[in-house]
Amino acid sequence: MIVIGIDPGLARTGYGVLSTGGRSPVPLTYGCIETGSDRIHEERLLEIHTRISDLFDEYDPGWVAVERLFFSRNTTSAMQVSEARGVLLLAAAQHGVPVAEYTPNQVKQAVTGSGRADKHQMQEMMRRLLRLEEVPRPDDAADGLAIALCHINMVQLR
Amino acid sequence: MIVIGIDPGLARTGYGVLSTGGRSPVPLTYGCIETGSDRIHEERLLEIHTRISDLFDEYDPGWVAVERLFFSRNTTSAMQVSEARGVLLLAAAQHGVPVAEYTPNQVKQAVTGSGRADKHQMQEMMRRLLRLEEVPRPDDAADGLAIALCHINMVQLR
Repeated sequence: MIVIGIDPGLARTGYGVLSTGGRSPVPLTYGCIETGSDRIHEERLLEIHTRISDLFDEYDPGWVAVERLFFSRNTTSAMQVSEARGVLLLAAAQHGVPVAEYTPNQVKQAVTGSGRADKHQMQEMMRRLLRLEEVPRPDDAADGLAIALCHINMVQLR
Repeated sequence: MIVIGIDPGLARTGYGVLSTGGRSPVPLTYGCIETGSDRIHEERLLEIHTRISDLFDEYDPGWVAVERLFFSRNTTSAMQVSEARGVLLLAAAQHGVPVAEYTPNQVKQAVTGSGRADKHQMQEMMRRLLRLEEVPRPDDAADGLAIALCHINMVQLR
C-alpha cells in the first residue's frame, strides 16, 4: 500500500510517499511544494491543490496522513496553514483517499521516541530509518516522510 | 456585474449574490451551506467546494468578496474557518474570479456606518438596503449579502 504524508503550509508544503509491503517502508519520492509570496493568495492555494492532486493521480495512495495543529501562538500562521490544509483535504476527498491526522508531537514520538527532536534530528532520523543516501531536504520533505511513517507505525500497515 | 459575498465556515458558509448596474444592487439569491459535524471532515470541505463552484458556474461573478479574520481568541474555530476559506479561495482561482477580502469590522462599517452592529441589526439593515420583503435568514446569509454589498460600496461598482 502507498501512504502519502503531508506537512501543509501556504509557502511550503512538504510531502513524502512511502510504499509498504516489504520488510520496511520504501520511499518512492519526497519533496516540497513552494509557492512564492509574490503570487496572488488564491493562486498559491491552486498550485498546492494541483500538485497534491497530481501526486494522488500518480501514486493512488491507500492513505494520506496530514499534520494537524491543535493550537498556535501565531494565529496568522495557523490560519495560512489551515487554508493549505483545506485544499489538500479537499483533494483527498475528491480522490476518495482516507485521511489520518497527527499532531507534530505524535509524529516525533512515533518516529524518534521523543517529542523533542529538532529539524536536523528529524532529517537524520528519516535518512537512517528509510536508508536514504542523503538526508531528505528540505526539512519540510523530511517531515512529510515522517508523517507517512508515523501513520504506518500507528496502524501497523507493515 | 455580479458580485458574490461569502462568509466562510466549516459548519455554515453564508453567501449572497448581488447584481449591480441598476440604481441599487439587486439580490439574486442568498443562502447558507450547512455541513453537519457527523460527517467526515474532508467531506464537509468537499461539499463547500462543490456548492460554491456551482454558484460560480451559475452566476459567473466578476468578483467574489470573502470575509477574512485577522485574529481570533478561539484558535480551533479560526483554523476551521480558514480551511473553509482555503477551499473557496481555490474555487475562485479555478474559475478565474478575482477575490477581495474584508474583515468583519470593515463590512459592518461599510454597510451600517458602525463597526458594532449585532447579527439582528445586520439582518435588518440588509432587508432595508436591498428592499427585501423579509430579513435574510440565517444570519450567515445576511453576512454573505453584506460582504458583497461592502465590496460594491468599496470599489464603487454601482
